[in-house]
Amino acid sequence: MIKKRFEGVLVPAITPFKADLSPDPDAFLRVCKWLLAEGANGLAVFGTTSEANSLSLGERMSLLDELVAAGVDPSLLLPGTSLPSVEDTIVLTSHAVSHGCGGTLMLPPFYYKPVSDEGLFSFYSQVIERIGSADLRIWLYHIPQNTGVGISHDLIERLIARYPKTVVGIKDSSGVWDNVEGMLKRFPDFSIFPSSEAWLLKSLGLGAAGCITATANVNVRAIRRLYDGWKAADAEDRQAEVADIRTTIARYPLIPAVKLAMAERLGEPGLALLRPPLTALPQAEANSLLTALRQAGLFTSRP
Amino acid sequence: MIKKRFEGVLVPAITPFKADLSPDPDAFLRVCKWLLAEGANGLAVFGTTSEANSLSLGERMSLLDELVAAGVDPSLLLPGTSLPSVEDTIVLTSHAVSHGCGGTLMLPPFYYKPVSDEGLFSFYSQVIERIGSADLRIWLYHIPQNTGVGISHDLIERLIARYPKTVVGIKDSSGVWDNVEGMLKRFPDFSIFPSSEAWLLKSLGLGAAGCITATANVNVRAIRRLYDGWKAADAEDRQAEVADIRTTIARYPLIPAVKLAMAERLGEPGLALLRPPLTALPQAEANSLLTALRQAGLFTSRP
Repeated sequence: MIKKRFEGVLVPAITPFKADLSPDPDAFLRVCKWLLAEGANGLAVFGTTSEANSLSLGERMSLLDELVAAGVDPSLLLPGTSLPSVEDTIVLTSHAVSHGCGGTLMLPPFYYKPVSDEGLFSFYSQVIERIGSADLRIWLYHIPQNTGVGISHDLIERLIARYPKTVVGIKDSSGVWDNVEGMLKRFPDFSIFPSSEAWLLKSLGLGAAGCITATANVNVRAIRRLYDGWKAADAEDRQAEVADIRTTIARYPLIPAVKLAMAERLGEPGLALLRPPLTALPQAEANSLLTALRQAGLFTSRP
Repeated sequence: MIKKRFEGVLVPAITPFKADLSPDPDAFLRVCKWLLAEGANGLAVFGTTSEANSLSLGERMSLLDELVAAGVDPSLLLPGTSLPSVEDTIVLTSHAVSHGCGGTLMLPPFYYKPVSDEGLFSFYSQVIERIGSADLRIWLYHIPQNTGVGISHDLIERLIARYPKTVVGIKDSSGVWDNVEGMLKRFPDFSIFPSSEAWLLKSLGLGAAGCITATANVNVRAIRRLYDGWKAADAEDRQAEVADIRTTIARYPLIPAVKLAMAERLGEPGLALLRPPLTALPQAEANSLLTALRQAGLFTSRP
């Protein structure tokens, strides 16, 4: 049996940019340390919310280097490391393994489609076998609305059967509860993270590992408290509270909204900057979002 | 007015791999020289059919270096140079410009979605302005079935208005005739390449620049002959012939089918090799395809 390396609330930390849109490693470090101090069980850096696919390979590796050099425990890091090419994916994944990261989060190759399970198996297989490291732990990343390429349950079964010590979990960002539930029932030993804290109680009840959620950037403390006390008497109330915050943010384009809320939360306006093709919320929407989050108490100190 | 750098039949040359799936530069050079000798007006290397997104940045640049070093005229090359990040796109595009390539074929960033025209304009704008070269000529690349991100006519208009000397054309691989026709009518000075030789006559009649088509890998001589004689008396017959070959190939997954046909056409079985996530045709399908193409006379010398 594999010890589960990650459990609880993982945050796909935003990637801050300077005014010229180059990465801001100091701000990135501040964000990551703050998230861990607020209660994040781990950081899924270079995920979708992190605008990872708007970063170059070199930028991703450099930011990871700086994070580890600054003392962030690499075992708490689950960086996104896959790109459409096996070669680039091996570069990023090897780099993460060499730093001792707790695992890597791996999209399927997301340009060619339709593709077969056979082709996706071959992609992951080549990455795993060419890296050839006993330290590699992969969480698959199912987000078909961005990739156009889904990870089927049959593919998961095949990967687990062939690489039981390496392919250990999945992040499901599909937003399809039936898919989450189906995986939890079919793969009870798999480390499954839904992408929404709104499903935390019902997914933990079925054996989920926790959640990896964009909105944890601004609300990780409350989500972590829910996770820790998910069997407590007030859990349903707390579940409703974090779901409300999420719903408020998700009325807007999610990544711009999360970055804007982070800028307000940490008092650093630059955190709201985005790389193309993402764009900032129009001012009226930005005002509405911040007003709603202020009314919800997100920007005031809470116990 | 910008002199149109490319006109006629451009081939998205396949990328050959060795048995270990590393790129085979010698075979690539043979394929490219053969395509030019067969009549290609230009080579859209590193396109979709070329499995460009299964190559690393370094592999793409190295193959282009070797092609130019071997004497292929860079003005005939229209390499695909874009990736989801502005940074990586600048690296590849600058490299192509430095080689004197006739132009570059540029996908929109294809991970985040939905994205606004504003965000896509910003992506192209940053690439163009940071490269800052008067030699840069961009053909946009509209292939929403792979990218999930379309290039709207309003975006084209805005890019042409802002960068009239740089954004000079588009490849439309959508397979939607109304989109091709709409662009040809709205942008009469734009260099528009549909992706199918089956539309060659009707698109040339509306002012298209030619075509950039996967199946030209195996049938460029006939397509070029149709292009050169598109006003001749037998043009409709020749149009029907090349459309038939295309239809035969397109009954199968297109890239595996094209590579298999190329392997047969050039007598080099290795040309059929594919990188994940693409997979070879099952043997029965491979046999059927080759039989059909043989019956169509594709593998026999023709005038």
